Amino acid sequence: MNTRTSKTFEALFALEDIREVLRQALPTGPDAAEEAELKAGVARVRAILDDLEAGTGNVHQPKIAGILDVRSREEEYINIQPIQAAGRLTPEARKALIAYGDGYSTCDACRKPFRLDKIQKPPIAAFHEDLAKFVNMDVARVVPGARRGFQAVASSLVNKGDPVIVSGLSHYTEFLAVEGAGGIVREVPISKEHLVEPDRAAEKIEEVIRSDGKTPALMMIDHVDYQFANIHDIKGLTKVAHQYDIPFLCNGAYTVGVMPVDGKALGADFVVGSGHKSMASPAPSGVLATTDEWADIVFRTTAMTGDVTNRKFGIKEVEMLGCTLMGGTLMAMMASFPAVRERTARFGEEVKKSNAFIKGLLEIEGTEVLSEYPRKHTLSKVDTTGSFDKVAQVHKRRGFFLSDELKKRGIAGEFAGATRAWKLNTYGLSWEKINYLTQAFQEIAEKYEIPVNKGHIQN
Amino acid sequence: MNTRTSKTFEALFALEDIREVLRQALPTGPDAAEEAELKAGVARVRAILDDLEAGTGNVHQPKIAGILDVRSREEEYINIQPIQAAGRLTPEARKALIAYGDGYSTCDACRKPFRLDKIQKPPIAAFHEDLAKFVNMDVARVVPGARRGFQAVASSLVNKGDPVIVSGLSHYTEFLAVEGAGGIVREVPISKEHLVEPDRAAEKIEEVIRSDGKTPALMMIDHVDYQFANIHDIKGLTKVAHQYDIPFLCNGAYTVGVMPVDGKALGADFVVGSGHKSMASPAPSGVLATTDEWADIVFRTTAMTGDVTNRKFGIKEVEMLGCTLMGGTLMAMMASFPAVRERTARFGEEVKKSNAFIKGLLEIEGTEVLSEYPRKHTLSKVDTTGSFDKVAQVHKRRGFFLSDELKKRGIAGEFAGATRAWKLNTYGLSWEKINYLTQAFQEIAEKYEIPVNKGHIQN
Repeated sequence: MNTRTSKTFEALFALEDIREVLRQALPTGPDAAEEAELKAGVARVRAILDDLEAGTGNVHQPKIAGILDVRSREEEYINIQPIQAAGRLTPEARKALIAYGDGYSTCDACRKPFRLDKIQKPPIAAFHEDLAKFVNMDVARVVPGARRGFQAVASSLVNKGDPVIVSGLSHYTEFLAVEGAGGIVREVPISKEHLVEPDRAAEKIEEVIRSDGKTPALMMIDHVDYQFANIHDIKGLTKVAHQYDIPFLCNGAYTVGVMPVDGKALGADFVVGSGHKSMASPAPSGVLATTDEWADIVFRTTAMTGDVTNRKFGIKEVEMLGCTLMGGTLMAMMASFPAVRERTARFGEEVKKSNAFIKGLLEIEGTEVLSEYPRKHTLSKVDTTGSFDKVAQVHKRRGFFLSDELKKRGIAGEFAGATRAWKLNTYGLSWEKINYLTQAFQEIAEKYEIPVNKGHIQN
Repeated sequence: MNTRTSKTFEALFALEDIREVLRQALPTGPDAAEEAELKAGVARVRAILDDLEAGTGNVHQPKIAGILDVRSREEEYINIQPIQAAGRLTPEARKALIAYGDGYSTCDACRKPFRLDKIQKPPIAAFHEDLAKFVNMDVARVVPGARRGFQAVASSLVNKGDPVIVSGLSHYTEFLAVEGAGGIVREVPISKEHLVEPDRAAEKIEEVIRSDGKTPALMMIDHVDYQFANIHDIKGLTKVAHQYDIPFLCNGAYTVGVMPVDGKALGADFVVGSGHKSMASPAPSGVLATTDEWADIVFRTTAMTGDVTNRKFGIKEVEMLGCTLMGGTLMAMMASFPAVRERTARFGEEVKKSNAFIKGLLEIEGTEVLSEYPRKHTLSKVDTTGSFDKVAQVHKRRGFFLSDELKKRGIAGEFAGATRAWKLNTYGLSWEKINYLTQAFQEIAEKYEIPVNKGHIQN
């Protein structure tokens, strides 16, 4: 770890130790021993700051609880890991985690009717309304990950043996949600261009009705899929679904929080997003939004009564299991939200940067992009079989040579050892980082005598 | 907010701003503008430290993202909130949240077979083994809250219309988990002493077999219940359950992480714990542990195959929906774990402190404890109808007079406005805080001329 990063963590940790002294002190204030501890703590932070400023001092990698190394990937590297890019926390989210880390920190002012999404202070109720508006749906709930959104919908709508339409590009968590509900996945075949097309979806529905003897209970399609990150024609697909009265879930794990998503314009009955994938939020977090039509079904409240005590828990929602995301996870999601809302409007610029980088990569002879091109998203699947993999074939480190070279240049998040088809994500990188990244890949190519045809690729 | 607390947060936040400069810089290091920003940031922290040390300077309550107030309940108050006490983070957990807050921070070294509980670095796989040992069960998984543990078990074992034995003291999330699975709750009536007794459980099972025409699919009982925090005879209850071949889930939301829990000695088939309630962990977190006998059922892997692509996601567990707790939530749980393991051995001391406080409260004439007494736990239900409520009856602030008085003395977490039956938790408070707390309540009583009979109560 470099000195400044190390010193920044050391200072943060030393301040947490100071904070702990305050926590242990009586309301009357620190006693003499605690005062001395505070003084020593402040002196320690001051010394760390001197080193931080000068970039001097010993780097002793701080360990947490004696077992956990500090993670400094985001401080020390340009991180192109496919699923991490848009989940990276904003500084405000990190501050919220600091202030609200304690388990039930959101619940100080929980009053009747005792449900998370009704809490006014902090403004959790207002956030739920904002979230629904953000994806232009009527009602929203936070959930512990997009997968828990799929689960809630599948569990509400799918009965044993029911077919559910997914696609050949569906994420595994959709499979699991259907399986958990007792349903069976039926995939829409993807086109040669790796797209889920409305016509094929219609054919599939017809086929399922014939073979399974019933209309699918649900259709779940990824707005942008995890394999190629192609943008699929959700509007066309919801039209098809609705012709058969099939409710439609739009999996926005790669779209909600990075690009504008208008659930009503898309015609979706459910929009699911991922906090840790695309909303600059901690894991596990996500959002499930729906229309007034479906809210009463998916967010139905409990009907169970204790047979002896006659207890009822009227307002608690069965699929949400009551409250969902307490504490810092939710507060960090809320702290990132203003920035997240704002950044979706700038998605065009993100796509430009994505294309600039991919163009640079394509200039390396033998490299291909497997995702639709020009790119419409920042996650891309590339194929370097004709370029870097040729080096890997004869290098003693095999595919890891590329990881080694990237690491030397301060780049992380490639799939270590992979030099054929692999994915990367440029979301949120500055133009300076994009240029640096492009140059780094081209430099590595040149070092291993792979021709780089600058200015060759159009997009 | 007091000056020192405010300055501590200001310093932490200013350091996060410094960290952000490092994050935005190229791998080649900060440029001139960034260097200037770092320098200014360090100067800012230094100025804050001066104030922090001297306890001087303006307190301007820092706002997060312009919308969230900083929470300082743990720094400025003795917090007796019933569900918050044992979820309060350790300093190590707070450091883990700082270092691992980014969504997928746990996944840097995720390799085949791509499942959270198999990750070696950070040592997540080892933590799962430790967790299982901790509750003396064979296998454990982390889950987003105890409720998600109930859900996984109910979803695996309970079919439509199946009766499930709970108790008259069961938590609402158990009701919801059964309802979600399509089952029906059947409550064991509680005794006059507010205990769930094995004999009554046996009677209830017999009754259910007669009335519902089938043996209950599951029995779920709270080790310590949320209403009185009484300790129930789980060992006796599992024996009864097993006489009828009913699998038994022990809800350890108030025990796992605060007192020793030996799942095998209790005879439980499932032990569920809550991270944010009792393991000094962020929300939502928890643990679901089971025996080898049941692991294959509750942690069954997916059997679903894509009908077009033939895709299979073999090792992913259906009920877990693949991975469960990524990022800082899990890492903070791991960071607290050494302290949590250690503190369960000191539960006797916690109970002593709990009793010392309750004794002091009972010395206030007219006050009663509704939980079993002497206390065996730190969560207690007390009844102040005969003491503080008499004041509330004639006070212009009604029951809020007590909250006002407590707040003045730096005590928070009572149920605001409640002066009849209410709950509190002394978990983790030092003897100094216990004594301060006791004295504060007695002082308030004396101020309002409620007699305090010091030395009167035995325990």
